[in-house]
Amino acid sequence: MSNHFEANMDKNSANYMSLSPLSFIRRSATVYPNRAAVVHGDTSYTYSEFYARCRRLASALSKHGIGVGDCVAIMSPNTPPMLEAHFGIPMTGGVINALNYRLDAKAIAFILDHGEAKVLLTDTEFAPIIKEALKLAKVEPIVIDIADPEGPGGEKIGKVDYEAFIAAGDPAFEWSLPDDEWNAIALNYTSGTTGNPKGVVFHHRGAYLNAVGNVFTWGATGGPIYLWTLPMFHCNGWCFTWGVTAVGGTNVCLRNVNSRSIYKAFETKGISHLCGAPIVMQMIVNATVEERRPFDQQIEFMTAAAPPPAAVLAAMAEEGINVTHVYGLTEIYGPAIICAWQNEWDDLPLDERARLQSRQGVPYEVLEDMMVADPETMVPVAQDGETMGEVFTRGNVTMKGYLKNVNATNEAFAGGWFHTGDLGVWHADGYVELKDRSKDIIISGGENISSIEVEDALYKHAAIAAVGVVARPDDKWGETPCAFIELKPGVVVSEEEIIDHCRNNLASFKCPRYVVFGPLPKTSTGKVQKFKLRDQAKNMAGAGQQ
Amino acid sequence: MSNHFEANMDKNSANYMSLSPLSFIRRSATVYPNRAAVVHGDTSYTYSEFYARCRRLASALSKHGIGVGDCVAIMSPNTPPMLEAHFGIPMTGGVINALNYRLDAKAIAFILDHGEAKVLLTDTEFAPIIKEALKLAKVEPIVIDIADPEGPGGEKIGKVDYEAFIAAGDPAFEWSLPDDEWNAIALNYTSGTTGNPKGVVFHHRGAYLNAVGNVFTWGATGGPIYLWTLPMFHCNGWCFTWGVTAVGGTNVCLRNVNSRSIYKAFETKGISHLCGAPIVMQMIVNATVEERRPFDQQIEFMTAAAPPPAAVLAAMAEEGINVTHVYGLTEIYGPAIICAWQNEWDDLPLDERARLQSRQGVPYEVLEDMMVADPETMVPVAQDGETMGEVFTRGNVTMKGYLKNVNATNEAFAGGWFHTGDLGVWHADGYVELKDRSKDIIISGGENISSIEVEDALYKHAAIAAVGVVARPDDKWGETPCAFIELKPGVVVSEEEIIDHCRNNLASFKCPRYVVFGPLPKTSTGKVQKFKLRDQAKNMAGAGQQ
Repeated sequence: MSNHFEANMDKNSANYMSLSPLSFIRRSATVYPNRAAVVHGDTSYTYSEFYARCRRLASALSKHGIGVGDCVAIMSPNTPPMLEAHFGIPMTGGVINALNYRLDAKAIAFILDHGEAKVLLTDTEFAPIIKEALKLAKVEPIVIDIADPEGPGGEKIGKVDYEAFIAAGDPAFEWSLPDDEWNAIALNYTSGTTGNPKGVVFHHRGAYLNAVGNVFTWGATGGPIYLWTLPMFHCNGWCFTWGVTAVGGTNVCLRNVNSRSIYKAFETKGISHLCGAPIVMQMIVNATVEERRPFDQQIEFMTAAAPPPAAVLAAMAEEGINVTHVYGLTEIYGPAIICAWQNEWDDLPLDERARLQSRQGVPYEVLEDMMVADPETMVPVAQDGETMGEVFTRGNVTMKGYLKNVNATNEAFAGGWFHTGDLGVWHADGYVELKDRSKDIIISGGENISSIEVEDALYKHAAIAAVGVVARPDDKWGETPCAFIELKPGVVVSEEEIIDHCRNNLASFKCPRYVVFGPLPKTSTGKVQKFKLRDQAKNMAGAGQQ
Repeated sequence: MSNHFEANMDKNSANYMSLSPLSFIRRSATVYPNRAAVVHGDTSYTYSEFYARCRRLASALSKHGIGVGDCVAIMSPNTPPMLEAHFGIPMTGGVINALNYRLDAKAIAFILDHGEAKVLLTDTEFAPIIKEALKLAKVEPIVIDIADPEGPGGEKIGKVDYEAFIAAGDPAFEWSLPDDEWNAIALNYTSGTTGNPKGVVFHHRGAYLNAVGNVFTWGATGGPIYLWTLPMFHCNGWCFTWGVTAVGGTNVCLRNVNSRSIYKAFETKGISHLCGAPIVMQMIVNATVEERRPFDQQIEFMTAAAPPPAAVLAAMAEEGINVTHVYGLTEIYGPAIICAWQNEWDDLPLDERARLQSRQGVPYEVLEDMMVADPETMVPVAQDGETMGEVFTRGNVTMKGYLKNVNATNEAFAGGWFHTGDLGVWHADGYVELKDRSKDIIISGGENISSIEVEDALYKHAAIAAVGVVARPDDKWGETPCAFIELKPGVVVSEEEIIDHCRNNLASFKCPRYVVFGPLPKTSTGKVQKFKLRDQAKNMAGAGQQ
């Protein structure tokens, strides 16, 4: 049967356009030409200037042969060129590959080869490691040095300086939206704990939707003053590299993230929004009197990577900062699940609020769908807050796939859902609560112990600044929890006191049998590197016996 | 050359889903099951109940054979069934055709036939006209009566009552998103002033994007309490029928829109947002003491259809209501252009602020693109605030086309832009300011006179409640402006005083030569029906001479 609503109703250039975050910069440059788009130390660019710089970059890259499907890598802290790369590279049709600057030369060489980088923009701070990586790599990208005036200097190892490179580009460069919104816009490598990292490919449609999704879900639609505490290389700064521009906000760059620089920005830049792992919240709440500065505005903080402990949430509230808890993975464009606030929580006691808020939550509008299900059968588990299952998602803010890795792609998408690899329970109210990464579960005497639950109990101890709990091999129990603890400055606590604290807060089988004090190994995004702790636990004296 | 970012990167059900506003109700029912979704008099439905009612409707329609591409018409004021129809009909794959209840039987019969309505939901208030329309129409839709407890009663003319109909449907009906986001979701007839109305077809993608665009652009993302002063049949309530649900807001229905009912809702329902033509603002600012009720909350008002006069903006500000001026047409899903506020306007004198705010503005993020250009050559005009041109738009919130009217569709999209038919100037800051519909321009002695400009001058007179200025044929000048004026209750003003007022505010050739006092003919959305005034002016004694 013919459908009269489809006859002579084809797409045309008046009624169809590819969804792409590139539209955001065109609009903000048109609507807010004189508003500050990027602030970095004493440098500031209006939207008009920012747009012109992005177009110059695109023009210069085009002249050097960059076009659809070409990979351009960038190694940079949170600086204006890093933001410009997020627009300038895709304007050519190219794909941005923002490198994690905490990786070693070998890993970077692997990524440059795997992504087939044709151009590499690199901040001079990282000259030594990039030099080494380029020696190891097979590709020979055109190297462009970024000499950031706010940076520490460093050797120039490239063909040309970034400012000279873009100066040769056309500020009125005529770029176009991608022919297909499914085209690749970004390549982000997951920091796999074993084997080579996997290259997650983002498409324009998903980048548009999650950029909108983040600001929409957060309510940050009114020109936020956004502080870049989150590394932009991390899922393209959770798509905020694009999202801040979508709402005509101001990007305040931060090259060095520490208590002092954060409070200084709060006071002098009028920051309204920022994101980060729990480590950034700790920089805020554990700042010394001398590092602090006064500020008046209401600040919104979005956190992911680990559930915010009640004590930290309480401390943040006392600072006048409201915390939103989100959850995501590189494969779903950074956060795409949010612990959406319910009005009725307002009246609950702080501890109860914090308990509810520590859950990962419900899908963003743009993500569409989520379930917790048996990893084998994919049958959804009961929404009872107890039955453990794997978290699955599906919807438009999901990667195209893993670059050159069809097996991993097929596995990740088996059964028509994305397999997060994260384990959790599903509450009656539809909120998911992660209990662990599959590999982070501790199995002791046949009982599953959530390392997150043990960590949460430890965070309630006033002396603890950061903690990581991992499995330690044990002849009798199989595994037992081992706690690595970083204390607040100047505090001394005994192992016994910590274990006693746990006994008062946890079932006895969940209490750590060993406690190790000292600074914790962390990723650049503040995640505790549990695989290092696991190695350490395995090799500890007495491991395997007890 | 092969592009390694596209190999083995196909869409699949994990990473691609059709964009559709239907996703909104699934999410809000999941995340906010106990929040009030719809309030109507003493009736209130939570999101969980609202979703179940929509699914029941979809299920019942499916049982009656409604599926992809089938048209379901609805004749209803702003009631819960009207909102439910916006989800329940598309859940079947069907297309909602919300009828303008101010139309006459002949026009409705034409629309039912043209859209090929298979089912007609009709509020009993409109039984007389629908009976007549069904006699005239060739189609024989299944008629379902909506007997709204808040309504005036009326004859039941259908096969079944709405509540009984949906009671037979399954509250857990398994609907699915459209296979293609380009599928039709809604059919809306433009109220053409000549000839038959044209059927504008919306697709799911555009409805999703403009629903998001409206709440996003307005900053109404935090669970607004939305008062339905705008008719839902008007571009599907500017897509707010879907948009309020996208953000888990509360729809407060309003069957009869007047000063008393609006203030009552402000006081008792905690309204935060509402939309409407200028007539609704006048109901607010011209309300009598006896009609008013106190309210504390900040209220946001979105207005379109005519630029808000300075005096009305000032009066609204005094009421504690902030006005956002938007512009659109049925073909672009209702408003898609906004007079985006600039922070620096805060410090300007009220008159200057009002002047800036009376401009239509810049495209929504989701609309993408706009220009003012010569209607013949489509060459953009200078952004000088003076050169007149036609407003053109393009982007994703643009109709699929006109139903069964390929010529009109091709004309509307000629040259790859949508031709709005509205004339205006383009200011240096990128804002468009409408000067007239092509047909509303008055050409006097070879000079173009903007009827809007004359109306704006008239609105500055304290005695005037509403005004419409049209061309009156004139032997000497070709045309001269003729003003139809509705005075505020109890006020008396002479024609001379009005003309004097104009001479003080306008170039002399722009001043009305005739003034007619009395109530103005208005559309259901509060637009003055200028074609009626034009007829009246043409037939006035003395027309053609002066």
